[in-house]
Amino acid sequence: MYTADEHQAWVHCILLSPVQVANNLMDMDQDPCKRLCFADGRRKVDYVLVYHYRKRSSVRGSPSQHRLSVISNGSYPLGVEGKDPEGGKDEPAEVVVDVGPPIPADGEKIMIREEFEGNLKDAGLEIERDKENKAHGHAFIRLHAPWQVLSREAEFLKIKVPTKKSYELREEKGLAATMNEVWRKLNQPFQPKVPHQEQEHSRTKFLSHCFSRDKLHLYGAFYKYQPVDLIRKYFGEKIGLYFAWLGVYTQLLIPASVVGIIVFFYGWATVETNIPSQEMCDEDQNFTMCPLCDRACDYWHLSTACGTARASHLFDNPATVFFAIFMSLWAVMFLEYWKRRQISLNYSWDLTGMEEEEVRSHTNTVTLRYSILTSFGVTCSAVFSVIIYRITISALMAMSPDPEVKSNVRVTVTATAVIINLVVILILDEIYGMVAAWLTELEIPKTETDFEERLILKAFLLKFMNAYAPIFYVAFFKGRYAIPGEYVYVFNDYRMEECAPGGCLIELCIQLSIIMLGKQLIQNNIFEIGIPKLKKLCRTLKDKERAPKEIVEQPGRRQQWHLDYDLEPFDGLTPEYMEMIIQFGFVSLFVASFPLAPLFALLNNVIEIRLDAKKFVTELRRPEAIRAKDIGIWYNILSGLGKFSVIINAFVISFTSDFIPRLVYQYMFSETGTMHGFINHTLSYFNVSNFKPGTVPSISSLGKDITFCRYKDYREPPWSSEPYQFSKQYWSILAARLGFVILFQNLVITMSMLVAWVIPDMPKNISEQLKKEKTLLVDVFLNEEKEKLQLIQSLFSRDLTQEQQEELNVSDQTSLPLHQTQPGPHPPTSSPAPHVAYNGK
Amino acid sequence: MYTADEHQAWVHCILLSPVQVANNLMDMDQDPCKRLCFADGRRKVDYVLVYHYRKRSSVRGSPSQHRLSVISNGSYPLGVEGKDPEGGKDEPAEVVVDVGPPIPADGEKIMIREEFEGNLKDAGLEIERDKENKAHGHAFIRLHAPWQVLSREAEFLKIKVPTKKSYELREEKGLAATMNEVWRKLNQPFQPKVPHQEQEHSRTKFLSHCFSRDKLHLYGAFYKYQPVDLIRKYFGEKIGLYFAWLGVYTQLLIPASVVGIIVFFYGWATVETNIPSQEMCDEDQNFTMCPLCDRACDYWHLSTACGTARASHLFDNPATVFFAIFMSLWAVMFLEYWKRRQISLNYSWDLTGMEEEEVRSHTNTVTLRYSILTSFGVTCSAVFSVIIYRITISALMAMSPDPEVKSNVRVTVTATAVIINLVVILILDEIYGMVAAWLTELEIPKTETDFEERLILKAFLLKFMNAYAPIFYVAFFKGRYAIPGEYVYVFNDYRMEECAPGGCLIELCIQLSIIMLGKQLIQNNIFEIGIPKLKKLCRTLKDKERAPKEIVEQPGRRQQWHLDYDLEPFDGLTPEYMEMIIQFGFVSLFVASFPLAPLFALLNNVIEIRLDAKKFVTELRRPEAIRAKDIGIWYNILSGLGKFSVIINAFVISFTSDFIPRLVYQYMFSETGTMHGFINHTLSYFNVSNFKPGTVPSISSLGKDITFCRYKDYREPPWSSEPYQFSKQYWSILAARLGFVILFQNLVITMSMLVAWVIPDMPKNISEQLKKEKTLLVDVFLNEEKEKLQLIQSLFSRDLTQEQQEELNVSDQTSLPLHQTQPGPHPPTSSPAPHVAYNGK
Repeated sequence: MYTADEHQAWVHCILLSPVQVANNLMDMDQDPCKRLCFADGRRKVDYVLVYHYRKRSSVRGSPSQHRLSVISNGSYPLGVEGKDPEGGKDEPAEVVVDVGPPIPADGEKIMIREEFEGNLKDAGLEIERDKENKAHGHAFIRLHAPWQVLSREAEFLKIKVPTKKSYELREEKGLAATMNEVWRKLNQPFQPKVPHQEQEHSRTKFLSHCFSRDKLHLYGAFYKYQPVDLIRKYFGEKIGLYFAWLGVYTQLLIPASVVGIIVFFYGWATVETNIPSQEMCDEDQNFTMCPLCDRACDYWHLSTACGTARASHLFDNPATVFFAIFMSLWAVMFLEYWKRRQISLNYSWDLTGMEEEEVRSHTNTVTLRYSILTSFGVTCSAVFSVIIYRITISALMAMSPDPEVKSNVRVTVTATAVIINLVVILILDEIYGMVAAWLTELEIPKTETDFEERLILKAFLLKFMNAYAPIFYVAFFKGRYAIPGEYVYVFNDYRMEECAPGGCLIELCIQLSIIMLGKQLIQNNIFEIGIPKLKKLCRTLKDKERAPKEIVEQPGRRQQWHLDYDLEPFDGLTPEYMEMIIQFGFVSLFVASFPLAPLFALLNNVIEIRLDAKKFVTELRRPEAIRAKDIGIWYNILSGLGKFSVIINAFVISFTSDFIPRLVYQYMFSETGTMHGFINHTLSYFNVSNFKPGTVPSISSLGKDITFCRYKDYREPPWSSEPYQFSKQYWSILAARLGFVILFQNLVITMSMLVAWVIPDMPKNISEQLKKEKTLLVDVFLNEEKEKLQLIQSLFSRDLTQEQQEELNVSDQTSLPLHQTQPGPHPPTSSPAPHVAYNGK
Repeated sequence: MYTADEHQAWVHCILLSPVQVANNLMDMDQDPCKRLCFADGRRKVDYVLVYHYRKRSSVRGSPSQHRLSVISNGSYPLGVEGKDPEGGKDEPAEVVVDVGPPIPADGEKIMIREEFEGNLKDAGLEIERDKENKAHGHAFIRLHAPWQVLSREAEFLKIKVPTKKSYELREEKGLAATMNEVWRKLNQPFQPKVPHQEQEHSRTKFLSHCFSRDKLHLYGAFYKYQPVDLIRKYFGEKIGLYFAWLGVYTQLLIPASVVGIIVFFYGWATVETNIPSQEMCDEDQNFTMCPLCDRACDYWHLSTACGTARASHLFDNPATVFFAIFMSLWAVMFLEYWKRRQISLNYSWDLTGMEEEEVRSHTNTVTLRYSILTSFGVTCSAVFSVIIYRITISALMAMSPDPEVKSNVRVTVTATAVIINLVVILILDEIYGMVAAWLTELEIPKTETDFEERLILKAFLLKFMNAYAPIFYVAFFKGRYAIPGEYVYVFNDYRMEECAPGGCLIELCIQLSIIMLGKQLIQNNIFEIGIPKLKKLCRTLKDKERAPKEIVEQPGRRQQWHLDYDLEPFDGLTPEYMEMIIQFGFVSLFVASFPLAPLFALLNNVIEIRLDAKKFVTELRRPEAIRAKDIGIWYNILSGLGKFSVIINAFVISFTSDFIPRLVYQYMFSETGTMHGFINHTLSYFNVSNFKPGTVPSISSLGKDITFCRYKDYREPPWSSEPYQFSKQYWSILAARLGFVILFQNLVITMSMLVAWVIPDMPKNISEQLKKEKTLLVDVFLNEEKEKLQLIQSLFSRDLTQEQQEELNVSDQTSLPLHQTQPGPHPPTSSPAPHVAYNGK
């Protein structure tokens, strides 16, 4: 409806957009809640236009006050979305607010406004304007859309409305009915107290409730289901779908959280009996490890890493593999379940016949590729900087003579590094959002939908990279290929860091939890709640400063539209969805390393739903209602993430965790068939005489009588014929790891396809109801047609001039007025049949 | 429309089913080709019913003559497909032929027929019957569907018809237009000479051509495009889609064949410079190989396998890897391209608004699973039997003292075994078809579509297994895990066979080509052409035998319906699709081992299309036209095969071919960095003293001075500390193989997703045209409505009683007759808007 530039300049408060025409058809003559009306008290205010004005005397004063004017889009080649794009002159005029440098002179603006108002009147809308005439301020023009206009638009948009005819839904019987009843009763406390809750259960009752602010308490109970139908009635389908989607997602997080907790507790319960962590903590098995950094670090005993070894067992145990498979299937189930829910909603919101107007066009891939590449570079350098920070700080702190500082190296470094990471991510997140918007504008997309899709895709790619790059680093790159004597150096000076002795999984876990929690807490609290409040405060202060007298003067006369105008404008659903999708990534992508992610997501979302609802109802202007059948490109992104998560989880399990080496050891190398000796098996020998000059620990408490130190890798010992080459164990474990990836991936893909195939897209009862409705409609329609025809025939037979008879072209052969004698295949438009043929697209 | 049981008993010749209603609307009053008419010469014969009758006197004669009777399905609870299933009493009566043990008495049959005819008349159909009254024979009842009935049904089915209004398609300009023109001219010789070929280019011309037998020559030229629009007009959408699909598939086979030929010739051109095959043929490198069977077989020199080594290079070269990736993407492209074509056809056939009636219901998975398991067992035992056959014959022939027999062992055994395999496959194919039908009937599906889908799925699974089981065996199991001294034995006596010395790939290739070619030749010629002809002959003979006098008596009086009745009934498209899908499997699944598969498929299909067309036009009764938007479950099967082919090709390349070992050798083990020494590297040593007693070659020309023989595997030599264990090479090559599978699979999946994303589902011009059409239709519709309303108003204003005025309930507030004052949201049916709301589903 407008381009991104003009977005901020829009002013619309209480639009009854076409979607709501259908609702209006329903509660036309019921007015239980005092509506906002024209001065005559009869005509309802459907839409309010706002503009700044000032008396001619003060025109040159402050240009900022002229930024809003209302003009018709008749002369603008803008894509129109949500309405028939080629509806021609009959469509209600669109409202476009002109903004920016070429400010028309005041007189011109008035002319433009007048022309626009004229167009509105031509389209059949009725207009009421304020009589008050202050020096300057906001002028509110109120519009009323009469019945004819609404029904005409409803026709073009093919909006479905309930008919007189009602039918009974099929009653379930037997066990299923009893189960349903039990479920309904158990569910009762979670149902919100909404007056027309029964609407979902019987389609014979018509809506009559009017949404109002004083029903806000309905949103207060976080544990109750959302009143999705009310949301849709008030905000339109698009926002309704968002909340429904969020509800489904949050609901399905419950089982995932439960299973995650069980997996976590399984690890907790088995930590005492776990042989590898026992062996690591066993101080008798005196493994002397090679130093973790050059010169400053000393040799160390493996048993000092006992704590992290035990902690990592909490996340790295056989149940994790099961959990990873479970979560991959969970993601598929979620998508399938949402598809069903969407179809149900389409049905109960009468959207089944809605036609999509969008044309998918090709993306300007060159710009996209470059931008994405640049951002990829920026993100990688951010990650790299943090790595450098970690390496230098570790080295500096390790060099410190204070033993207390030394002992806290790892904790301090990890904590500060992750926090820096988090801050960088949050800042880059905002920057990337702007970059994506800028890039999308460069591509000049044709329609708003097109614009939105491109923007979303870019923003998603950038933010995804931003949020996950450090996690990918820890999961797959940190501490690989580090063998003593052949360390990888950065800038010739800094040796690449290794993972903690307990394995990289525990670090991945820390990284994940801090980034996930931090992002959610900070973005939810500061960005979503704090910043809008701050903005509002600023705006209020500005307005007061600008026109302090008038507004303060007449507080009693302020109408609803004055209050609404003070609220923040609605910015679209993209940030809300984006936040959730990134969270979905945390839940699905690395779930193998952090089984508690679904729990954290659940806790966040339970609050998020209500915070969003509160924000939408009380802090934003009522958004324009937009019809939508589905959640659009977000579904594709979700489905892509789901697919990506399979391969990522496969790699995390086989390469980051110790699952495969343990299995291979037990069944291939262990002489007893148990896990005893596993730790010894994973450690290779290094001859300290092979250290490069200058890398030997400078001060060492252990170093004097040491010939061999140990490091975590599978390599030939110094005394073999091929010292420090990969050993046979290495290759066999690598083969097993890769084999596991193939197995896991294909197993999960097959199971996902099976799940998607077994769950029908359309719930059975919905498809049955649709069929039934269709039959009934045909019946109703046939009967009415018959009556009408009889009436017309009786009219014709009694009084009809020859001319009119010809005009109607009634065939003498049949009783129906059909053009059977016409040469072309043109179906006669005055008979019922062709209407169906025309409109049944 | 009928269950499987009743299928064969159906008799219908020239049905004008609802699909053709639309066509009839077009050529209503044009009659260029003398149609079959009623005796009055005006009313066209739309459908003919046939039944056997005999005079009452001869009732007890032969019960077989009573098997057909025509009754209404009003009393039958059968699923109805292709028509509104709940259209109620108004739908034209369905024809069901009663068959089987409970034969009603003759009088009862007459009553049933009379009732049925009554129903037909109630539905508005007109009936003409033969006046001739012989003792017994076939009675033909001809039906005519008048205009009202057709238009009423067209309305219920929402069939689109062209309107008076025409519009110009957007002309392309500039380079694109020139390119198009060049393409059109180049294409000209391939366009079939069809009178209304221009219909695709301008929608303003109306069809007037009537399809007839004497236009058959149109199908004669195999190199021309198919007249798909004509096929659709005559046979209906379902069969039209089949031929269109076959056309797209065949067309896309052309590039695949070209690339396949190039790959093959690349192998042919590089065979001389290929170091591994040179080394194998080099008689100086005297590798003494271990015997291929116990006792009877002798040691042998590797250079004797020179021929197969060179042959296998034709198929196993680096280009094959590229080809496998190419073909995986080709499969995706094919599906995407078909999607587009389907949408184009939907558009040009005016099917865009068609609603699917099917309800996907759950499959009775238990039965399915068991049956499939049983058949899996049967197929496996068949494969296993062939293996046993090969082993025993090889052993017997090797034991033969005749040296000529001995030298031909491998050729004879392979050839006979593959032919036996082929025969078994062809027989099991027929059996499995019946098994699938039987199993599906057990499940009692609700609708015909449901039945068809289940049948197809089962038949596909069974036939797929049947055709591919031996190929899978050769590709992945034959000759694996065979080390001397530890051979795998079957029945304690028969040692499992190994692959030919050139590798398993060449055997896979032979197997594939023989099964593919054999299956296509035999099924095309014998089953598709021979058997129907045989059946027809039988039927004609039977009929002649039964009633030789009447038919021979009046040969001059035979009408078209008599001739049509003599043809074979149509059995559905399933066998045609099945054949092609199995072929698609050959083309996609194992294409890495047989690059010429697309070429063979192409050659087959070019003939197949025309043979099918000829069969449909001249040898089968005209099938009932069935509306369809897509090719249904076949698309899913194709897409599943495409996905499966990725992993199969990955495994064939990495495990069956020598591609990975060669790469690993060159970059990891080769001292010179070249392929020299590769053959030696792949052969392990075996100490002949380790042979188990009784397995040493009994008579040996080489055996006396041999200590070590060689075998193809990566194992430790007898003198190592772990003799005959897998060597480090084995594990590193295994890791490389597995890594390649992961890489290949994920690369191809990603590229496929990219291809599917880049190619929009709907061609751009189609979506633009759809939009334009919609706008124009709305305009036409609005104008006509306005005129109509004005007329009605003028009528009302002149002469209208008070009662009628109340009945029409004209609102005094607006100029439209809308029920604004009505309390409920019931839209008035006499205004245009609600029609749209009703039908715009």
